[in-house]
Amino acid sequence: MPVPPLPVDLSGIRLDPQQGLARQLYQALRERILDGRLQSRTRLPASRDLAGLLGISRNTVTRAFDQLYAEGYIEGRIGAGTYVAELSAATRPSAVPAIQAQSPATQSAALQLLQSHHLSPPLSGAPRAFRVGVPAFDLFPFEIWARLSARFWRKPSLARLGYGDPAGDLQLRELIAAYLRNSRGLHCDPAQIVVTSGSQQAISLCAQLLVTPGARVALENPGYRAAGHALAIAGAQLCGVAVDDQGLDTAALERIEDCRLLYLTPSHQYPTGVTLSLERRLQLLEWAQRNDGLIIEDDYDGEYRYSGTPLAPLAALDRQGRVLYVGTFCKIAFPALRLGYLLLPPALAEAFARRRALDMRHSEIGTQAVMAEFIAAGHFQRHIRRMRSAARSRRDALLAGWPQNVPGCAPLPVVEAGLHLCVRVDSLARERQLISAAAQVGVEISALSSYWLPDSSTPEDQRAGLVLGFAAVPEGQIDEALLALRRAWRI
Amino acid sequence: MPVPPLPVDLSGIRLDPQQGLARQLYQALRERILDGRLQSRTRLPASRDLAGLLGISRNTVTRAFDQLYAEGYIEGRIGAGTYVAELSAATRPSAVPAIQAQSPATQSAALQLLQSHHLSPPLSGAPRAFRVGVPAFDLFPFEIWARLSARFWRKPSLARLGYGDPAGDLQLRELIAAYLRNSRGLHCDPAQIVVTSGSQQAISLCAQLLVTPGARVALENPGYRAAGHALAIAGAQLCGVAVDDQGLDTAALERIEDCRLLYLTPSHQYPTGVTLSLERRLQLLEWAQRNDGLIIEDDYDGEYRYSGTPLAPLAALDRQGRVLYVGTFCKIAFPALRLGYLLLPPALAEAFARRRALDMRHSEIGTQAVMAEFIAAGHFQRHIRRMRSAARSRRDALLAGWPQNVPGCAPLPVVEAGLHLCVRVDSLARERQLISAAAQVGVEISALSSYWLPDSSTPEDQRAGLVLGFAAVPEGQIDEALLALRRAWRI
Repeated sequence: MPVPPLPVDLSGIRLDPQQGLARQLYQALRERILDGRLQSRTRLPASRDLAGLLGISRNTVTRAFDQLYAEGYIEGRIGAGTYVAELSAATRPSAVPAIQAQSPATQSAALQLLQSHHLSPPLSGAPRAFRVGVPAFDLFPFEIWARLSARFWRKPSLARLGYGDPAGDLQLRELIAAYLRNSRGLHCDPAQIVVTSGSQQAISLCAQLLVTPGARVALENPGYRAAGHALAIAGAQLCGVAVDDQGLDTAALERIEDCRLLYLTPSHQYPTGVTLSLERRLQLLEWAQRNDGLIIEDDYDGEYRYSGTPLAPLAALDRQGRVLYVGTFCKIAFPALRLGYLLLPPALAEAFARRRALDMRHSEIGTQAVMAEFIAAGHFQRHIRRMRSAARSRRDALLAGWPQNVPGCAPLPVVEAGLHLCVRVDSLARERQLISAAAQVGVEISALSSYWLPDSSTPEDQRAGLVLGFAAVPEGQIDEALLALRRAWRI
Repeated sequence: MPVPPLPVDLSGIRLDPQQGLARQLYQALRERILDGRLQSRTRLPASRDLAGLLGISRNTVTRAFDQLYAEGYIEGRIGAGTYVAELSAATRPSAVPAIQAQSPATQSAALQLLQSHHLSPPLSGAPRAFRVGVPAFDLFPFEIWARLSARFWRKPSLARLGYGDPAGDLQLRELIAAYLRNSRGLHCDPAQIVVTSGSQQAISLCAQLLVTPGARVALENPGYRAAGHALAIAGAQLCGVAVDDQGLDTAALERIEDCRLLYLTPSHQYPTGVTLSLERRLQLLEWAQRNDGLIIEDDYDGEYRYSGTPLAPLAALDRQGRVLYVGTFCKIAFPALRLGYLLLPPALAEAFARRRALDMRHSEIGTQAVMAEFIAAGHFQRHIRRMRSAARSRRDALLAGWPQNVPGCAPLPVVEAGLHLCVRVDSLARERQLISAAAQVGVEISALSSYWLPDSSTPEDQRAGLVLGFAAVPEGQIDEALLALRRAWRI
C-alpha cells in the first residue's frame, strides 16, 4: 500500500535506529512546534501514516504522541485527528541562538570577579617531584580503608543515612577533639568542632561569616593565595603583611588601620616555611584583643615537625575566644579525601554549623564514619608517624641531592617542618628560567613570585624563589628528578 | 633526703598520674607564666628538685622544660639555672575571662543574620512515618555499594587522590550527562555539569554567584525554605510568588518589578505537590528573556512519577542559556550521601567550577567514583525503578489507610508524583492540634504553615495544612502510624 502524502512536511526527521525512537520522534516534533515549523492547529498525520513514512512501529509513534499530549504540545479527540496545540505567541519561545553571545548573568559582582579573575588550581594528576601541598599518600593504608569502608556500608545504621548534624558526625568530632587535646595541647569540646570539606572549606566558611564587604583583612604576603581568593570573593579588602624570619611581621600588622581579621599559617608559614615565634604569637593575641578582632589560624601541616618541639598553636594560647583553628586530614591521608575541621570559639560554633547547613547540609557520612573508625582503631596515629618519617626521608633525599651553587639561587634553608621548602632566587627572570627548564624535563617547581598579592610593595626581584614540595614521591623519584634538574640547569 | 624549699611557689600543681605527666607539667607552668604567677626572670627550681616535689621522674620534668624552652617561655644556660623568659608586658595576655560574654565577631551581617535567625534543620535519626524529604532508603543495595567501595579503595589510581577537578570527577559527569539526556530529555555536555554536595550546595552556589546584595529574587510561596535561607544569606530580598493548581503564578511573578532571578520546583512543587503546566513553563522562559533573568530549576524528586508522563524540565525547553538545573542523588540513594549536581548554561559553567574550587576544592573522590561505577554497572537505573515502585506502594498504603473525614481537614489530593503529599487544613489552630496530637503518638507530620515566608500576605488560616512524606518507611509502619493517628485524633 503506498504511503499517502503527509499533510505537513516532516521529511526532515531522521531517526537513529540505535537510540530510543519514541524519544527522538517526540523531540523532533517538539522542536518543530516550538520553533513554529509546525503551527498551532496544524493537523498531524495519523500515527499509522507517520509510522509508515518513518519506517518505525505505530506503537513508537503513539508513545511520542502521548508524551507531546501530556506536555500540552498537541491536542486530539478520538476520531477527530491530532492537532498542534494553541500556544500563545507570548509563550512560544522565539527562535534565538541556542546560547547568547553575552552571559546574561552580569548581575553579581562575585560572578564578575570569578569570570575576570583566573585562579590557578592546584596541579592534578599523579604526584610528581616536586609538587607542593601533597603528602606521601602512596603510603596510605588503602587496604585498611577499603576494609573499614566495606564494613561501614555493609550494615549502616539507617539513623545515620538521613539528614545528619551540619557540624559533622558526633563520633568523629569527639575523636578530633581528643586528637587536638593530645597532640596539639588544645583544650576543646566536640561542640566547638565543625567538620569541613578540607581546610579550604574551613577558610571559605570563615570568609563568608566574618567578612563584611569592604572590610580589611590581613594576611601573610607571600601567602596562601587560595585563602586570599576566598576572602576576596566574600568582599574583603586584602592587606598583605610581610613575613620575616620570625614569621608574620606584627609591627606591620599594627600599622594597618581598622582591620579586625587576620588569616595566617603560624606553624609553618606557607610558602616560606618560617615558624611564627612565641613572642609574635602573644603579640597577635594582644592585637586581636585590642582591636576586637579574630584570627584564623591555618595549621595545614602541623603534624610534620622533624626537629625541635612544636610551638603551641595560637588557639592553645588564646584565652578570649578569638582564634579559629583550621585543621585538615588531607595532608596526612590524601587531598581528594576533602576532610578537615574548624575548632571554633564556643560563641561562634553554632553560627558556623548553621551556615554550613545552608551551604550543603553536612559532609557525606561514609567518609566521616570511616575516618572515625580509622582514628578509633589507632590507624590514624600510626599513619601520622609513618607519614612524618617518610616526609623526613624524602626531605633528606632532596637536601642531600640538591645541586650546590645553582647560579642565582640561595643555599637551601634548614627544614625543620612541613612538606615543602622555599629557596630565594636573585631575580624574577632567573626564577622563570629555572622553573621552565625544570618543567621541560618533567620536574614541577612552583614560583615563589606566584604567592604574592598583586599589589605588593616588595620589589619584583625580591619576590623570586623556588618552592619545592619534597613529600609527593619516594626517594628514588626524587633522585631521578634531581639528576634531570642538573642536566636541565647544566650544573 | 629532704626536698629543699622551692624558690617559687609551685605547690598548686597537681598532676593526674593517668595522663601524660610531662604535658601536664608543661601546661601548668605555661599557665603560670602567662598569667603572671611566675614573673619574668624568676628562677625555676632545678629539674631534680621539682621532680622530687611532684613525685615524678626527672626525665619527665626535663621534657616539660624542653617544650617550654622551645616555645620561648623559659631560658637557661648550662650550669646557670633556668629562668622564666622576658615576655614584654605588651605580649603577655592579661588575665581575662576565658570567653568574653559578647561574641567579638559582630562585624558581619551574615553572622548576625545566622545568630538571630533560627532555621529548623531537617529531622535526623532513624526514618519515621511521615517524614518529609526522605526516600525509601531502607531498600538501598548497601551490599553492592560496600563491594564497589572496597574495590575502589583497594587499588585507587594515585592520580585521582591528589587535588581533582572542582567541577567533579569527569567519569561521573559524563554518566550524569548521559542520564539527563536519556531520562529527562536534556541535551547537555559533561562540561556543563558541576558535581555538588547535594541539591542544597547547588542552590547555595547559585545564591552566592548570582545574587547581588539587595537584589530581588522570586521564589514559590509556600516553598522550600532552605533555598530561601541560602538566597537570603547571600543578600537577596525574597519575593514570594503564590502557587495555584498550575504551579507558580506567572502573572504574580510579572508584577514584581526589577527582579531577574527565580528559584522554583516545577516538576513537583515543594511542598504543595503541584506540577507546573507547560503554558507556565513557556511563560517563565519568556519572562527570563524579557528581563535578562535566570531561573534555578530544582528537580529534587523528578524521578518519582507514578501516572501521566513527566513534563519536559524548563532546562530542556530553554534555548537561551537561562536555566540552571539542580538535580540530586539523595532522593534516589539516601540524604547522607550528599551528592547532587548542577546542569549549567555553558556561559556559566566555568565560573561555578571556580567558585566551588574556592569553597572546597571539590567533592570527596570515593563517593564520586563509587557512584560512577554504580551508574555504569546499571545499578542506578535498576534502583530508580525499585525506588519508584516502593514509593508508589507506600503512597498507596497512605492513601488507602488515611482516615476519612478528619474534621477541619480537606480530602487527600491525587498524588501523581513525588515523595510527599500536602493536604489543606481549615485553620492554624487546627493544624497545630493535629500535628501535636500526632507527635504524641510518635507520628511526624510537617506543618504547611512552616513553608511560608514570614511576611506573606496570605491570611494565616489559609496557610494551614499537613505535609506528609510517604516514602520513608515500609507499608507496615505506615499502617501502624495510621492506626496511631486514628487513636490520637479520636476518629
